[in-house]
Amino acid sequence: MNRIITIGREFGSGGRELGRRLSEIMGIAYYDQEVITEISRRTEMSEQYIRHIMDQRPVISYPIHIGRHFMVSANPVLQQSQEVFFRQREILRELAEKSDCIIIGRCADYILADREPARLFIYADMKSKIRRCREKDPEENRTDAVLEREILKIDKGRAAYYNHFTGQEWGNREHYDLCINTTNCEIKSLAQRLSGMFY
Amino acid sequence: MNRIITIGREFGSGGRELGRRLSEIMGIAYYDQEVITEISRRTEMSEQYIRHIMDQRPVISYPIHIGRHFMVSANPVLQQSQEVFFRQREILRELAEKSDCIIIGRCADYILADREPARLFIYADMKSKIRRCREKDPEENRTDAVLEREILKIDKGRAAYYNHFTGQEWGNREHYDLCINTTNCEIKSLAQRLSGMFY
Repeated sequence: MNRIITIGREFGSGGRELGRRLSEIMGIAYYDQEVITEISRRTEMSEQYIRHIMDQRPVISYPIHIGRHFMVSANPVLQQSQEVFFRQREILRELAEKSDCIIIGRCADYILADREPARLFIYADMKSKIRRCREKDPEENRTDAVLEREILKIDKGRAAYYNHFTGQEWGNREHYDLCINTTNCEIKSLAQRLSGMFY
Repeated sequence: MNRIITIGREFGSGGRELGRRLSEIMGIAYYDQEVITEISRRTEMSEQYIRHIMDQRPVISYPIHIGRHFMVSANPVLQQSQEVFFRQREILRELAEKSDCIIIGRCADYILADREPARLFIYADMKSKIRRCREKDPEENRTDAVLEREILKIDKGRAAYYNHFTGQEWGNREHYDLCINTTNCEIKSLAQRLSGMFY
């Protein structure tokens, strides 16, 4: 069975960089945006729209009462959301079949549970996440307060999507093997030290 | 500054064994019961009584209204509890000063915060914790349900003591650098892999 490492992460925690560096050190595949590109290829949806869908809680369809019958409303947004999740599952399973790999987000820890992945969750304190956002984009000129609201909003969306499709709580340590706090942490050095955990 | 590793842990998670093995691999000091022995030496209290105090939330003393004056009740149990915490802090600071070390429990992550310790929290699912308890004591013949209640009770006490004296939430990932799930994990091999994180 291939070795799979899944990485859930708070926005600004450096989880994506950690995954990329880890894959380079370990010489294994790394999947992040590639999953979205592939979903887009297999559906009629643009990558941007897929990203939008993945960043929020799917709209729930309630049964509509018509006369004596209950009818499930044909909610196109919900249908698309389910289609995205279905494709996501399909693609992740194919990737996990191909070779050892690291997968960022995408509910991969849940979808690939039967592959017994090493499930990582990366987090950091707010100050540190704001600093990372500024380092990543030197032209970022929003105030700390605005950035904080944005970070919380993004994570709220990620949590909602994850919780909806997995029935688990995003970021709850129970569902991960290793939760890593990257506050004041140099990701490059962390990746190097962490790689030893997987040999 | 000496390298300090603190280990908070759920009962039955193997956190204590992990700490001991890690200290052997890294060749550094390991403190667990030793702290209690030393508190006992410096106070009039028995080790058993100190352990009892550390396993629960200190009784709060409320001001007693006498005439027009508020008097703080002289609550001997609370006073002893505070005395234990005071000694605990004193001893941990001395140990941290002496050499690199690993410290199990005792609010060490909080007490030694200015030493920037690597703060670990070790946890596992209930099934796995019950199994570890049975492996540790082959004569353990209580039912799973009874053992589960006992484990939850011990952790509730640990949490209450920790939360009271630190003002933080025991087991909340925010207060740790690394949270490790030992469900289905061989502690010996984990210690070996984990040691690489600290070089």
